Amino acid sequence: MEIKAPRGTQDILPKEAKKWEYVENKIKGICEDFHFEEIRTPVFEHTEVFARGVGDTTDIVQKEMYTFEDRGGRSLTLRPEGTASVTRAFVENKLYGDPNQPVKLYYFAQMFRYERPQQGRMRQLNQFGVEVLGSADPAVDAEVIDLAMTVYQKLGLTSLKLVINSLGDTESRKKHREALINHFSPHKEELCRDCQTRLEQNPMRVLDCKTDRNHPAMKTAPSILDYLNEESSNYFEQVKEYLDLMNISYEVDPNLVRGLDYYNHTAFEIMSEAEGFGAITTLAGGGRYNGLTEQLGGPNTPGIGFGMGIERLLMALEAEKVEIPVKDELDCYIVSLGELPKKEAVRLVHELRINGIQVDQDYQGRKIKAQFKAADRYHTKFVLVLGEDELEKQVINVKDMATGEQIEVPLQQLVTTMKEKLIGGK
Amino acid sequence: MEIKAPRGTQDILPKEAKKWEYVENKIKGICEDFHFEEIRTPVFEHTEVFARGVGDTTDIVQKEMYTFEDRGGRSLTLRPEGTASVTRAFVENKLYGDPNQPVKLYYFAQMFRYERPQQGRMRQLNQFGVEVLGSADPAVDAEVIDLAMTVYQKLGLTSLKLVINSLGDTESRKKHREALINHFSPHKEELCRDCQTRLEQNPMRVLDCKTDRNHPAMKTAPSILDYLNEESSNYFEQVKEYLDLMNISYEVDPNLVRGLDYYNHTAFEIMSEAEGFGAITTLAGGGRYNGLTEQLGGPNTPGIGFGMGIERLLMALEAEKVEIPVKDELDCYIVSLGELPKKEAVRLVHELRINGIQVDQDYQGRKIKAQFKAADRYHTKFVLVLGEDELEKQVINVKDMATGEQIEVPLQQLVTTMKEKLIGGK
Repeated sequence: MEIKAPRGTQDILPKEAKKWEYVENKIKGICEDFHFEEIRTPVFEHTEVFARGVGDTTDIVQKEMYTFEDRGGRSLTLRPEGTASVTRAFVENKLYGDPNQPVKLYYFAQMFRYERPQQGRMRQLNQFGVEVLGSADPAVDAEVIDLAMTVYQKLGLTSLKLVINSLGDTESRKKHREALINHFSPHKEELCRDCQTRLEQNPMRVLDCKTDRNHPAMKTAPSILDYLNEESSNYFEQVKEYLDLMNISYEVDPNLVRGLDYYNHTAFEIMSEAEGFGAITTLAGGGRYNGLTEQLGGPNTPGIGFGMGIERLLMALEAEKVEIPVKDELDCYIVSLGELPKKEAVRLVHELRINGIQVDQDYQGRKIKAQFKAADRYHTKFVLVLGEDELEKQVINVKDMATGEQIEVPLQQLVTTMKEKLIGGK
Repeated sequence: MEIKAPRGTQDILPKEAKKWEYVENKIKGICEDFHFEEIRTPVFEHTEVFARGVGDTTDIVQKEMYTFEDRGGRSLTLRPEGTASVTRAFVENKLYGDPNQPVKLYYFAQMFRYERPQQGRMRQLNQFGVEVLGSADPAVDAEVIDLAMTVYQKLGLTSLKLVINSLGDTESRKKHREALINHFSPHKEELCRDCQTRLEQNPMRVLDCKTDRNHPAMKTAPSILDYLNEESSNYFEQVKEYLDLMNISYEVDPNLVRGLDYYNHTAFEIMSEAEGFGAITTLAGGGRYNGLTEQLGGPNTPGIGFGMGIERLLMALEAEKVEIPVKDELDCYIVSLGELPKKEAVRLVHELRINGIQVDQDYQGRKIKAQFKAADRYHTKFVLVLGEDELEKQVINVKDMATGEQIEVPLQQLVTTMKEKLIGGK
């Protein structure tokens, strides 16, 4: 019986993996320019990290986590998102004590959510994300948004929409919360079951509901922006001003609330507007989460970050028909004939490789014609032919597949010759 | 209450992450020279993949796996090693049908083993590994060993020991198995409980036992090498000859059996001989597993691979005092004074970054002296100072921290100037 990869997961095969690597390297370079540094956290955490750090009332924590007990009876959870893990690491490793503040971190990590798999939604998904901890400067909010937009633009995406909102501080949210309860309570019975619960636990998330989005009470719902106190309002104005200075266009959407409990002040999402991109258009989302560190046992620290799906990014590149440049060539292939030439080929392949030259040979006992065909399939630049005659003369025949030119090279000079040819030709 | 990372897992913080990235990039370059391509498989698999692919009688499957049921009642397991997952992917994606054979794959992946954590043994560990599927050429065995040795040597390790063995084919192993049972059965009661079970299930693994290794019957145990049939013996001779041709030194150890059930023919381990490296000296281990594909529902295909721990590799580099070159500098830092200069700084930082120039600024509301100190801590190459006077004149003061030289640059020419200085200075 054949066993398949678990539902909602996928193998990334070599051809696709090259695209992933290209995208990741490009993003790493941008992170370096923005002076962000990499952090890696474990694949799983104590379940409490997410219960506290994402929020008990969220769909993620209530329905979508891969939670299990280890053999020692601890409750562990595969990370469903990045912020809680990075914040836990920031607290545990006392990064708040580093003289270099804010701490600007990025990560590439698999995330795990038990959802119904569909196009663009996997149970194991991959995210690039950043977290900046230790600064409440609105310029950081703009910096983080700038980083996300720069990634998409440098990779070649053009059909993008940035939507921002402010969720205000605790005081502003409290007033807005009351207004929402007053507004929706008369309609409670008309709302979906989830929203009835949300109305009690976290009424702002009613605004985010896909089931009830056409309910007439939605349109007239009180906007958070009318409830921002002066400080929150000023903060939001500054973020917008910095974005303007950077020439980054955005829309303000007071209904943008994000799925996680911990956000305050700036929230944002980036959507693809590419034609035929599919039903789920969100490419990245993030926001500010001042005080989340306290939930995880640390000193009160401001923070902001975003998460960006790599699968969705690749889908958007495809939708916009952006070609990802990947190497699909082999530098050298040795064709050998006979037992002794094969042995010498094994030695030469080793020697070329330890000198940094890419080379392969036949391992299937193929005849000469089939070896040439294999070299062809690999798009080989130089085919090196070694028969018994050549071995006797201690030479090898080097054929430049682009020009058809053939030369005989003494075996002892092969490494030097190939280095020259390949560096000259690069 | 503070919540810590789960026992046996660790955060890799930025300073350390830079070393990881250096090592990974170096390894990827070597894989490219050896013409291996990357594959990525999911973090978890159906438990059966490992029960079948690693072996029901192994310690890994019996004691060390993180196994859990998902919300749909499927038994899933976090991968404890790489070969079973990659082989499952090879079968599921029908890579045996690719005209380019053998299929030469490499991976970087976290592995999960519920063991007692100790130095060099984590519950979440990271491995680099390769798998070559589709060729039974002993030159591939040598190629795979060469790749592992090249990785260590190119990274700077010198105190290495390569140990090889042959476990023979099915026929040879069967004869050896009988001999082992005959040899150990009179001593059964003197062996540890695990070995008593092993003697029934997989007697070869008695040779690998740490508890019983000083039992007198160990020394006189029948060697697999005396039971190899002609084909297996010839195969092993060829592998050794290829290693000799490549000038790779090795020791043959007939007691090297490896912990996994699926190996046949070539088995190998690479150990560190660096002083003070610690109790666990194995850096990498691998071997041939012809026919494993059949266990996972595919056509009978030869295969060989190895896994190499990244944590252990870094420990070995440290033990041998190899310096890992990592960048610990910042190209530019903008020091700004006053509200308007700060705004202009935000714009300039954005402009420099989207032009590929690394730059940072203050986000802590620091005074000028503290901003200079911050630039210093980051080992900044160029400090760019923008006060109200400069802004009025539309210039910025560029200070080369290496030479102390200062110049005024018109704001409009800043990107061009910095590009010249940084590319000239690289």
